[in-house]
Amino acid sequence: MSLETLRAPEDSQGAEYFSLPRDYYLSDDWYQRDLERIFRKRWMFAGHSAQLSEPRSYITCEIGDDSVVVVRTDDGEVAAYHNICRHRGSRIAPERCGQLKGRLVCPYHAWSYDLSDGSLRSVPRKPADFDMSPYGLKPVWVEEWHGMLFINLAAEEPVSIAERFADLELGPWRLEETKVIRDSEFLLPVNWKLVAENFLECYHCALNHPELCTVFNPDQTAVSENRHVSAEGTQRETGNDSSPAVVPDTDDDYFAFANGSLLREGAVSYTMDGKLKVRKLLGGGEEPLGHAGLFSFPAFNFTLCPDYINTLTWKPVSATETIFRKTWAVHRDAVEGVDYDTDDVCALLDITVQEDRDLTVNSQLGIQSHAYVPGPYNTRFESGIINWMRLYHRIHAGDA
Amino acid sequence: MSLETLRAPEDSQGAEYFSLPRDYYLSDDWYQRDLERIFRKRWMFAGHSAQLSEPRSYITCEIGDDSVVVVRTDDGEVAAYHNICRHRGSRIAPERCGQLKGRLVCPYHAWSYDLSDGSLRSVPRKPADFDMSPYGLKPVWVEEWHGMLFINLAAEEPVSIAERFADLELGPWRLEETKVIRDSEFLLPVNWKLVAENFLECYHCALNHPELCTVFNPDQTAVSENRHVSAEGTQRETGNDSSPAVVPDTDDDYFAFANGSLLREGAVSYTMDGKLKVRKLLGGGEEPLGHAGLFSFPAFNFTLCPDYINTLTWKPVSATETIFRKTWAVHRDAVEGVDYDTDDVCALLDITVQEDRDLTVNSQLGIQSHAYVPGPYNTRFESGIINWMRLYHRIHAGDA
Amino acid sequence: MSLETLRAPEDSQGAEYFSLPRDYYLSDDWYQRDLERIFRKRWMFAGHSAQLSEPRSYITCEIGDDSVVVVRTDDGEVAAYHNICRHRGSRIAPERCGQLKGRLVCPYHAWSYDLSDGSLRSVPRKPADFDMSPYGLKPVWVEEWHGMLFINLAAEEPVSIAERFADLELGPWRLEETKVIRDSEFLLPVNWKLVAENFLECYHCALNHPELCTVFNPDQTAVSENRHVSAEGTQRETGNDSSPAVVPDTDDDYFAFANGSLLREGAVSYTMDGKLKVRKLLGGGEEPLGHAGLFSFPAFNFTLCPDYINTLTWKPVSATETIFRKTWAVHRDAVEGVDYDTDDVCALLDITVQEDRDLTVNSQLGIQSHAYVPGPYNTRFESGIINWMRLYHRIHAGDA
Repeated sequence: MSLETLRAPEDSQGAEYFSLPRDYYLSDDWYQRDLERIFRKRWMFAGHSAQLSEPRSYITCEIGDDSVVVVRTDDGEVAAYHNICRHRGSRIAPERCGQLKGRLVCPYHAWSYDLSDGSLRSVPRKPADFDMSPYGLKPVWVEEWHGMLFINLAAEEPVSIAERFADLELGPWRLEETKVIRDSEFLLPVNWKLVAENFLECYHCALNHPELCTVFNPDQTAVSENRHVSAEGTQRETGNDSSPAVVPDTDDDYFAFANGSLLREGAVSYTMDGKLKVRKLLGGGEEPLGHAGLFSFPAFNFTLCPDYINTLTWKPVSATETIFRKTWAVHRDAVEGVDYDTDDVCALLDITVQEDRDLTVNSQLGIQSHAYVPGPYNTRFESGIINWMRLYHRIHAGDA
Repeated sequence: MSLETLRAPEDSQGAEYFSLPRDYYLSDDWYQRDLERIFRKRWMFAGHSAQLSEPRSYITCEIGDDSVVVVRTDDGEVAAYHNICRHRGSRIAPERCGQLKGRLVCPYHAWSYDLSDGSLRSVPRKPADFDMSPYGLKPVWVEEWHGMLFINLAAEEPVSIAERFADLELGPWRLEETKVIRDSEFLLPVNWKLVAENFLECYHCALNHPELCTVFNPDQTAVSENRHVSAEGTQRETGNDSSPAVVPDTDDDYFAFANGSLLREGAVSYTMDGKLKVRKLLGGGEEPLGHAGLFSFPAFNFTLCPDYINTLTWKPVSATETIFRKTWAVHRDAVEGVDYDTDDVCALLDITVQEDRDLTVNSQLGIQSHAYVPGPYNTRFESGIINWMRLYHRIHAGDA
Repeated sequence: MSLETLRAPEDSQGAEYFSLPRDYYLSDDWYQRDLERIFRKRWMFAGHSAQLSEPRSYITCEIGDDSVVVVRTDDGEVAAYHNICRHRGSRIAPERCGQLKGRLVCPYHAWSYDLSDGSLRSVPRKPADFDMSPYGLKPVWVEEWHGMLFINLAAEEPVSIAERFADLELGPWRLEETKVIRDSEFLLPVNWKLVAENFLECYHCALNHPELCTVFNPDQTAVSENRHVSAEGTQRETGNDSSPAVVPDTDDDYFAFANGSLLREGAVSYTMDGKLKVRKLLGGGEEPLGHAGLFSFPAFNFTLCPDYINTLTWKPVSATETIFRKTWAVHRDAVEGVDYDTDDVCALLDITVQEDRDLTVNSQLGIQSHAYVPGPYNTRFESGIINWMRLYHRIHAGDA
C-alpha cells in the first residue's frame, strides 16, 4: 500500500493528507493486522521497576490475546515469559501482580519453572521416560530503562530501548528511585489509532482542555522538529498560522519534545495551578529539574515533570475497543499526606485524559457511519499525525 | 428471488404462504442487506416538529451505523445532515437533542458549518491554501409533514411523504400544534422483521392483549382493503371466519385503516377505559374528531385519536437486535396535571407494546433453533404480513 | 483427521499425546462442528423425573440454539418435542418449567398440540381448506432412566440409555424415589472441552481441591480400567508413579468408577467431613448403600452416595462459553430442616466445582494466546483425557 491511499479521490483538491478509510478503524481484519505487524513486533510499556522491587515479585501484562509475566529474578535481573504453562496452556501467573515463594509454579498441576531461564524444573508424578528439556517457558524480550519496564513479543531480537533513545538524557531525574502512586486503566470503545491520533496533535486543545491550557500554551506545538531533549532542553519552535504548511519527512517512530518550555510563565509542573505538588523532587535535589516528554510509536507516552512522571499507554483489545492505562510515580522517599496528595499530583492529566476519552468516542461513532469519508489533516497543526501515518503505511506495506 | 422461496418444500400442501427461512431472522448478511436496500433507502420517522420548536434547535437520529442531525434553521425550515465532521469524522452533534448558539460546530477542532446548506464556514488555524468548498456536511433528505419529521438516506431524491400519503387528510387534527409528552425507547433482542410481522396482524390480539380488546374489536381486522382514511372515515370490512381466504394483491407499501370504527361501542380513544384522557382535544375544537392510523413500510406506525397521537418506530441495530421507540403527543396547550395525566394517556398502548415485546422475543428464540422451518401464515387473518412479504421479496429481488 | 494431529511437531520427543491445537478451543467453526456432530447426536441430561412429577408438568432444556420441551403425558409417559410452534416459530413453552392445563398451546396464536404425539389439534380461525396434519410438533428422543431424564436430538433412533449402561446396576438406590433439593447453573467463559478435560483427570486434585481431598484419595485414580460398577463394587486399581505409562485403548464413551472405594478410611459420603448428611437414605433402608459414579461423553457426570445423588452437566453456548448445571437430589421423604440441611448436602461438591471453575478459566485465558502450543498429557495420570480425545477425533473424522 502506498501513501496514495491516504488521498480520498473525491476530495483531492486542497489539503494533501487525509484520515484513514473507515475500514481501518472498524474491521477485525485490520485489528488482526495491527496486532501482528505492530503490537507483536514493537516495544510495549509493561510497568515501573518499582512494581518489581523484590526478588521473585512479578507483574503480568496483556497484549491483544497474549499475556506476559515479567519477574524479578533472585539476582535482581528482569525476565519475561509468555504466561502459559507448557503442559495444558493454563496461565501460570493469574494475578495482575504478586510475590512468588520460589519458582514459577502453574496453579493447575504444579509444573514449575526456573525464574532466570524459564526451564521446566519439576513435573509432579512425572513418568519415568518424560524429558522436560523441550518444555521451558517461552521467553519474551524485556528491558529495564530508567525505572520503566518494556516488553517485546517479536521473534527476532529488536533494537534495544537504550539504543533507540540514546539521545534522551534522563539520568538526572533518577527514575529508578521512584514509587508508583497510581496505576489504573479503563476500557475505551474506540479503535486504538484514534487514541494515537488524538495524542499527536494539540489542534484540539484550546477548545477541549481548558484546565491544561491554563498552564500550557498549545499554540507552540504546531511543528515538532525538535526530536530530542535533555534535562536542560529549552528549544522552542513557534509556528505562525499563516506560514506555509510544513510536514517534516522523517523515518522516526518517536517524538520527544522540550515541552518544559511550553509551560506558561510561572508554571513549573503539569498540575492544576502549575505549581509543584510533591515536596521531595525527582533526582533527589532541592532545585527542580526541567521537563521531558516522549511519544513513541505505537502507544506510549510519558510526561516528566520536576516532581512526577506520568505514563500513558493504550492497547487494542478488539477493532473498536482499547484498554487505556495511566500511571504516576514520584520520588520513592516522598510520603503520602506529608509530601504530596495523590489526587493533586494526578488531577490535571487525569482530567485531560477524560476529555480526550469523550473526543475519541465521538470520533469512533462518527467514523462508523457509511457516510464517513477520509478528511484532510491540517498540514501545519496535525503534522504529527501525518508523520505517524507515513510510518503506519510503510509498516503495512512491509517497508518498516 | 421469487415468491416461490416463501413456500417451504416439505410443507407444500395446504396453506400457500409461509414465514421466512431462519437465516433471514438471524444472519448478519441479511441485516446488512436490509440496511442497504430498505433502511438507507426509505423514509424513517425522526421525531416531532415540536421537538424542533426553536431556531437552531436540533435532534439526532440513528439508522443502523449512521447518525443524522436534524436542525431548525433560522428561517424556520428543517435541514438534515450526516452527523459527521468532514475533518476527522467526529460527530458534530453528540447529544440526542440540543440548542445551538449559532452554526453547527464540531466539538473536536471547531470546524463550523452553515445550518441552511451545510457548507463549511470556518476552520480554525486554516492553512492559507486550504479550500473549504468541498467540505460541506453531507445532506440527508428531510420532510416535515403534519407535525412529524421524516428523514431519508437515499442517494436519489425520493417521492415525498406528502405526495405518497396525499389521500390521508390529516389537516383537521392540526398535528403541528402538538407537544411531545413521552418519547422513550428500549432494546429488543429480536430481528426487526418479527416486530413488523407482529404489527401486521391482530390474529394474536384476543389471546395476548386483554386491555386492548376491552376497547377494540380484533375480529374486524381480518382483511384490510380500505387503504385510505379521512377524518370522517367509517369504512368497515368484516371478514367471516369461514369465507374463502383473500389476499389482496397490492403494490402498496403502507396501510391506513379507518380504525376509529373498530373501537367497541362507547369507546372513543385508545385508553384503558376507552374514554378521552386529555381535556384539550387535537384540532382545538370542543367536539372530538375521529381516528386514523397508518402503518408504513418498513417501520412506522401512528395511532391518531381525538385526544392524542402515538407513534411507534423500530430500527435494526444488528441481525437480532432492534431499537423500539414510542412517542405520544397531545395538544400543545394542554397542561399536565390539569388537562391530562401522562400515564393515563399512554397506559393502553404502552402495555400493548410490552405484551408484543414478550411475544416477539419468544418468536426470535424459537426461530433460532435448527429445527425451525417456515410455517404457514393464516391467509385470512395474516394477509397483512403476506402483502408485506411480497414487497420485501420484490425489494431484495431488485423489483421495488 | 487422524490421531497424528495430536502430536505437536515441535514437541515430538518424550510424551506421546498432546492437548488440542488452539483453534479447537476458540473458533466458532469448531463450536458449530461440536454442536452438529456431538451435541445434536448424543444423549443429554435434561433433569430429574421428580421435576416432571405431575401429569402435564413440563421442563424445557436448551442445547446450543435448540430448545426442547419435555412433558409428562396424562398416562404417565414422558414425551419431548422441539420447543417451536409450527405456525410462526414461537417457543410454545417459554418458561424453564411449568404445569399445563391441557394441551401444549402456543402463547402467540393459540395453536394447540397433543401431549402424547405432538399432533396439531386446533388452529383458531382456521381457514376452511387448511390441513393440520403436516404441522405436528417435531419429536425429540427422550428416555427416563433411574429417575433421570435424557434427550437426544439425533435424526436416527439412538441406542437407548438403558442398553448402553446395562451393566450399571442402580436399582437398589431407587433413584425414581428422589426429590431435587438444588438445581442451579452458571455461565463459564470457557470452551466446553476444557471443562470435560478437567473432569477426566484428578492430577490437579491434590493441589486444588483441599476439601475434596480430606475425604477422597486422588492418588488412586491414575488408571481407570474398571468400567462398570454395581452397588457392591469395591474394585481398586492403584497405579504406581514409577510404573510404565498405560493408556488403555478403548472405544467406550463413558467411564464408571467404583469410587466409593476411593473414599478415605472413615468417610462414607462426599461431604465436608465425610459423614452422611441426610437421615433418610437413598433406597429407603436403614443401612447405607455404596457409591457409584458415571462420566459419560460428552458432558454428563453423576456422583451417587448413600444419601444423595449429584449431577453435573455442561453445554456449549459459544466457542468460549459454557453453561454449567449442578443438581442434587435426596430421598423424596426426607424433610428439609429435619432430615437434612441443603447447604450441608451440597457443600463439598459445590466448592469443588467453584475451584474447577477458576482452573478452567485460567486454561482458557492461556490457550487464547498466540504463543500457546499443544502440551503433553501425563500418560499415567491423564489417560482419561487421552481416551476421550481418541473418541473426539474419531467422531470428527467420521469414524464414530
